[in-house]
Amino acid sequence: MADTTSATTRQFTRQDTEHYLRQRRNWGRWGDDDELGALNLITPEKRVQAASLVRTGQSVSMSRPFPKEPNAINPFPALHYMNRGVRQAGGSATDFYGIAYHGMNSTHIDALCHVWDENGMYNGRKADDVITYKGATFGQVDNWRDGIVTRGVLLDVPRFRGTPFVTQETPVHGWELEQVAKAQGVAVTPGDALVVYSGREEWSRDAGRPWGSGVSTAPEGQVHGPDRPGLHASCLEFIRESDVAVLVWDMMDMFPNGVGLPWTVHGSIFAFGIALVDNALLEPLAAICAAEGRWDFMFVTSPLRVEGGTGSPANPLAIL
Amino acid sequence: MADTTSATTRQFTRQDTEHYLRQRRNWGRWGDDDELGALNLITPEKRVQAASLVRTGQSVSMSRPFPKEPNAINPFPALHYMNRGVRQAGGSATDFYGIAYHGMNSTHIDALCHVWDENGMYNGRKADDVITYKGATFGQVDNWRDGIVTRGVLLDVPRFRGTPFVTQETPVHGWELEQVAKAQGVAVTPGDALVVYSGREEWSRDAGRPWGSGVSTAPEGQVHGPDRPGLHASCLEFIRESDVAVLVWDMMDMFPNGVGLPWTVHGSIFAFGIALVDNALLEPLAAICAAEGRWDFMFVTSPLRVEGGTGSPANPLAIL
Amino acid sequence: MADTTSATTRQFTRQDTEHYLRQRRNWGRWGDDDELGALNLITPEKRVQAASLVRTGQSVSMSRPFPKEPNAINPFPALHYMNRGVRQAGGSATDFYGIAYHGMNSTHIDALCHVWDENGMYNGRKADDVITYKGATFGQVDNWRDGIVTRGVLLDVPRFRGTPFVTQETPVHGWELEQVAKAQGVAVTPGDALVVYSGREEWSRDAGRPWGSGVSTAPEGQVHGPDRPGLHASCLEFIRESDVAVLVWDMMDMFPNGVGLPWTVHGSIFAFGIALVDNALLEPLAAICAAEGRWDFMFVTSPLRVEGGTGSPANPLAIL
Amino acid sequence: MADTTSATTRQFTRQDTEHYLRQRRNWGRWGDDDELGALNLITPEKRVQAASLVRTGQSVSMSRPFPKEPNAINPFPALHYMNRGVRQAGGSATDFYGIAYHGMNSTHIDALCHVWDENGMYNGRKADDVITYKGATFGQVDNWRDGIVTRGVLLDVPRFRGTPFVTQETPVHGWELEQVAKAQGVAVTPGDALVVYSGREEWSRDAGRPWGSGVSTAPEGQVHGPDRPGLHASCLEFIRESDVAVLVWDMMDMFPNGVGLPWTVHGSIFAFGIALVDNALLEPLAAICAAEGRWDFMFVTSPLRVEGGTGSPANPLAIL
Repeated sequence: MADTTSATTRQFTRQDTEHYLRQRRNWGRWGDDDELGALNLITPEKRVQAASLVRTGQSVSMSRPFPKEPNAINPFPALHYMNRGVRQAGGSATDFYGIAYHGMNSTHIDALCHVWDENGMYNGRKADDVITYKGATFGQVDNWRDGIVTRGVLLDVPRFRGTPFVTQETPVHGWELEQVAKAQGVAVTPGDALVVYSGREEWSRDAGRPWGSGVSTAPEGQVHGPDRPGLHASCLEFIRESDVAVLVWDMMDMFPNGVGLPWTVHGSIFAFGIALVDNALLEPLAAICAAEGRWDFMFVTSPLRVEGGTGSPANPLAIL
Repeated sequence: MADTTSATTRQFTRQDTEHYLRQRRNWGRWGDDDELGALNLITPEKRVQAASLVRTGQSVSMSRPFPKEPNAINPFPALHYMNRGVRQAGGSATDFYGIAYHGMNSTHIDALCHVWDENGMYNGRKADDVITYKGATFGQVDNWRDGIVTRGVLLDVPRFRGTPFVTQETPVHGWELEQVAKAQGVAVTPGDALVVYSGREEWSRDAGRPWGSGVSTAPEGQVHGPDRPGLHASCLEFIRESDVAVLVWDMMDMFPNGVGLPWTVHGSIFAFGIALVDNALLEPLAAICAAEGRWDFMFVTSPLRVEGGTGSPANPLAIL
Repeated sequence: MADTTSATTRQFTRQDTEHYLRQRRNWGRWGDDDELGALNLITPEKRVQAASLVRTGQSVSMSRPFPKEPNAINPFPALHYMNRGVRQAGGSATDFYGIAYHGMNSTHIDALCHVWDENGMYNGRKADDVITYKGATFGQVDNWRDGIVTRGVLLDVPRFRGTPFVTQETPVHGWELEQVAKAQGVAVTPGDALVVYSGREEWSRDAGRPWGSGVSTAPEGQVHGPDRPGLHASCLEFIRESDVAVLVWDMMDMFPNGVGLPWTVHGSIFAFGIALVDNALLEPLAAICAAEGRWDFMFVTSPLRVEGGTGSPANPLAIL
Repeated sequence: MADTTSATTRQFTRQDTEHYLRQRRNWGRWGDDDELGALNLITPEKRVQAASLVRTGQSVSMSRPFPKEPNAINPFPALHYMNRGVRQAGGSATDFYGIAYHGMNSTHIDALCHVWDENGMYNGRKADDVITYKGATFGQVDNWRDGIVTRGVLLDVPRFRGTPFVTQETPVHGWELEQVAKAQGVAVTPGDALVVYSGREEWSRDAGRPWGSGVSTAPEGQVHGPDRPGLHASCLEFIRESDVAVLVWDMMDMFPNGVGLPWTVHGSIFAFGIALVDNALLEPLAAICAAEGRWDFMFVTSPLRVEGGTGSPANPLAIL
C-alpha cells in the first residue's frame, strides 16, 4: 500500500479553498468575454497528441445508463416513452427522451453557467444577468459545440490505496492525486481531461445503496445533501496547478465538504473555467487501464447543441 | 462540371431496390443474434486508422442546434425548461431537456430497431416481438454504448456538380457517389462512416423554407411526406458494395422515392445493419474539407445510453 | 362504537369476487358498443336531483395537490416548469405541467380502458385491440367529456368505527359500508358517486410515512405492491348492488387483496363500467359532513378532454 | 338584425382603457393580501342560486380537445404518451400528459399571477417578487382549489348580429354586450361567469385556418401576434360595471388591440382580479341555449391543484 502519510497530516482549510477559488481563478486569462474557459487549453496540437495515444483501438464508454428508474438518489427519473408508426407494409419505432440531467445519476457535462458563488460565475458574470427562463446567455453549453477532444489521464485512487473504494473517512486529497500520478508513472499536463476514479460502483454494491444516498451530517446552514465520500476541497490545488481543462469523476466533491463554502471542487467551473463531467462510469475503463498498465488515452465527448443550456447529458468515450 | 451522364441514363428500379434490401442484406453475417450490425466492421484496427487521420487537430461539430423552435418541419419542438437554485450565498442553474428526436430536425443516430419493412427488422426480428411500451428488446441503441469511432469520408455532391445544392430533379445516385469519390481522389472503404453532403442549408436559404417542407406529390398509398430532394434508392448499391458501417447525411432519402417501397436508403438500417446519422449539419465540415483538399478524418459519436432506445440525439464530431 | 360483528364473521372469497366480476358484470347492459358505462345511470333527472342538494353553497375540493415532490409512493413526480415573457412594459408567466397521473398520488379519474383481467375490458373488449401507442380506441376518457355531475354520498368509515383510520388488519367490507350508510341515515342510490372515506391522511400522519409505502407481504405471483389498508374485495357486492356510477376513495383496494386475483375493487371499472376517482382528498369534506350532519351533496368533476386517454388528473368538487 | 349603431359610433380610447385598468381596478377591494380576486363575489348564496338554475339536467363541456396535434396556432403541441403493464393474467394502460396550456389552443383557466402591466399584478404585486423558477408565490392557481361554481350567462354575439361569427372589422364592444343581454332578456349580475360566444369554430371553418393564425398588422412595438377578431378593449367597461367574477370566451381580445397597450381585456386579470377561461368551446352550449331560449345555467370548473401554477387546463361544465 502506498504511503499516504501526508494525506492525513496536511491541512487544506476554508482559507486555502477561498484562495484557490478567488486568488487563483482564471477570470480574464482568455479575455473578459471568453466563454470557452479552460477548453482554451485544448489546442489543435493537444488534439493531435490525444489522437496519437490511440494504440489498441479500443473504445470504452464512461457513461452510466440513462436513469429511467427511481432510486434513492434519482428522485426525478428520466422519461422514456415509445411510439410506433406504420409505413405501408412496414413501420417504425420512435421515442421521447426527457431528462433533468444534473444531480447524481446522469453522466453529464456541466457548462460554465451551471454554478456560482457570491462572487459570481466564470469571468465575473452575475447570475441575475445570465440566467433567464429561456436559457443562459453566458457560458452556455453550446459554446462547446465542437466537442471536447483531448488527452485523458485516469488516476485510480482505490488501486493506489489498495482498497476497493474511497470512504467517507478518507477523502481524496489534492496531494494524493499527485502521489497517484507519480505511482502510476503518468504526468497530468495542461489541457488534459483529468479522470479521477474513486470506486463509486463498488462503494454502492458494498453499501447496498446508491452512493450519495442516506443522511446528512452537514452543519446547519451548509450544503444539505446526504453525506458522500469523494474529493476534498484540497483537490482544487492539484486541478489548478496541473492546469487541466476537464475533470471527469465518478464520486464528486465530498459532503459535508468541511470548509463551509457552498462549492468546493465544483467551484472549478466558475473559478478555473473547466468543464466537469459528473457521474462518469469509470469502473470499466479503470479495469482496462490497470490490465494494460497504461493511464492515458484519447478522450472525446460533445454536448447536445442546446443553445442556452447549462450542460448536457453525454456518453464520453475513452479511446485507447 | 463533372460528367454526370450515367446519372441520368442508368436506371435503378423497384426490383433493384428490393434486390439490395433482400438478397444483399447482412442478416446472419455476424450471427443471428448480433445486435451491433455493420458496426462489427469497425475493428480496433479501424479505430487506430481513424485516429491516425488527425493531423491539424481541428474538431468540428456535425450537429444542428437542438430544435427548440417550431417550424414547418418541426411540429413537435424539443422542450427546454430552466430551473435555478440557491446554495448558501451562491447558486446553480439547471435545466430539463425533452425531445422526440426522430424526424427531420434533430441530428440523431438511428438504432437497428428503428425501422422495418414487411420482411422484418435487422436479422429478421419482427416488430411485434421487439417493440414494447418500455422500449425495444432487440437492436436498441445501448448496444452501441461504446461509441462509433471510425474513419469518416465526406463526399461533397454540390461541389462535384458545381451547383449549390441537390435539387428535387437531380437526386443523388449511387453511381454518382462513386464518381464524387473518384473526383475527390478518396476511397470509401469497409467500416467507414460515409458522410454525404447535399447542401441542405443552402437549399433552405435559397427556398426560404426548411428542406422537406411543402407539399407531397407521392402517389396514393405511398410514403406521404412532403417532397424533398436527397438520395435516390440507387445509393443502396454504393452503400452496400462499399461496406460502410455508418451513413451520415444532411438530406436524407428523396421523397417521393420513386420505387413505391416504404423505405429506400433508410432500409440500410434493417437490410445492412448500418447506423444512420440523420439531419447532420455538414456545411461547416464541407467548407473545411474543400479548403484543405482533404476528405477523410476521424469520426466520433456516441449515443446517450438509453436502454431500449430506438436511437439518440447526438453531436457527432469530425476530427481532422 | 357501532356493531361490526358481521364484519369479522362474514366471508367474501375469491369465488365471491369472481362471481361479482363475472356473473354480475354490466357488459351489454347499455349495449355492446357502449362506452359510457355506469355513467348511463346519471340521467338528467339525477343531475337535477344532485343540484337540488346544494343548500349552504359551500364548495370543497376533493383533490390532493399536484404531486411535484418525490416521496416513497411518488417515484415519478409530476413536472412543473415555469416560463416568463415580456409584453411591452408588462409581461406574463406561463408554465408546463407534465404528469403520469395514475398510481397513488395524483387525484385522478380512471377511464374504462384503464384496467382489465383475463376476460377483458369493459364490454368484453381486448387490450390488444384497444391499447395503441397513440391512445386507447375504446373506453377512452373523452367519452366522459360532458362531465360527471351526480349526487355524492360520503360514507365515513373511521367515524362509524370510532377510530382515526382504517388499518391493515381491519379492511372496509361491503357489509360495513351498508352499516355505515344506515348509521349515518343516508341511502346510497343508483347513479350516485359513492365516496368512501377511510382516513388516509391521518393514517399517514400517524405512521409517519405515506399510505401505501413500505414492504409487500403479497404471496409470490400476486400483485406486488406494498401492503396498504383499504377496501376489501367484498365491497364489490355493495358497489354493484347499490348500482352506483362512480367510486371516489382515499384509500383504494387493500394490498394484499387476499383473493389472489389481479384486481378486486378496481375491477369495478371493467366489470361494472363505473368511473373511479382515485386518491381523493376526503378529510376536509368528511369534517364538513360530520359537522353539518349531512352526507350527501352535489358531486361534479370532469376529465381533461384527452382523446385516447386512459383517465385524467382532476379536482373533483363537492357542493353542499 | 339588431341596431348596432352605437357600436360603430361610440369610441373607447387608450385613455378609456387606462381608466378601467387603473382607476377602476379592484386592488385592495378585498384586502391588500387577497389572492381570490373577483372570486370573492361568488358567495355561498351565489352558488345556491347557480345550482337552482339546473332544470333540464343537461351537462355540457365547454372544453376544446387536448391539443395533441400541431397546427398554425399550436406550435408546441401537448404530449400524450402511453404505457401498458401486466398484472397477473390482466393488465393496465396508463399514460403521460404534458402541456404548456397557455396560448390559443387549450381550454384553460388563467390565474391572477398570469399577466401584468407596468403597474404590476393584481393587488399591486411585482412580477420580480412573485415569479420564480419554482412557481408563483402570489395569485397562484391553487388559491382557487375549491373550484369556481357560479351562475353562467351566455351572450351570443353572432346570433344577436345575425351573422355567423365576429369578424376582424367588427369587434365585440362593451356596449354591444349590454345590447345582447337586453335582446336575450337576461341580466348579467355580480359574481356571474360571463360567457361570450363569438363563433370561433365557424370562423375557422369559413377561413379554412385556425382563428388567430395568419399575419400581424400590429404597429411596430405593439403586441406582435397575428391579427384575430375578438373582444375590443371597450369590453373592460362592461366587465367591470357588471362586476362579473369570471370571463369565459372562445375568441379572446382582438389583435391588434388598437389602443397600443400590452393588455386590454386580458387586463381584467390584474385590474379586476377576475378569472379568465380562455379558448372555451362554446358552439355546443350556444346551440343548446338558442334552442331552449335560456341563457343562464350553473357554471362549474376547477383547476388542477398545482401549487405555484399560473393557471390550469380545464374542462368547464355548463349544467342547465
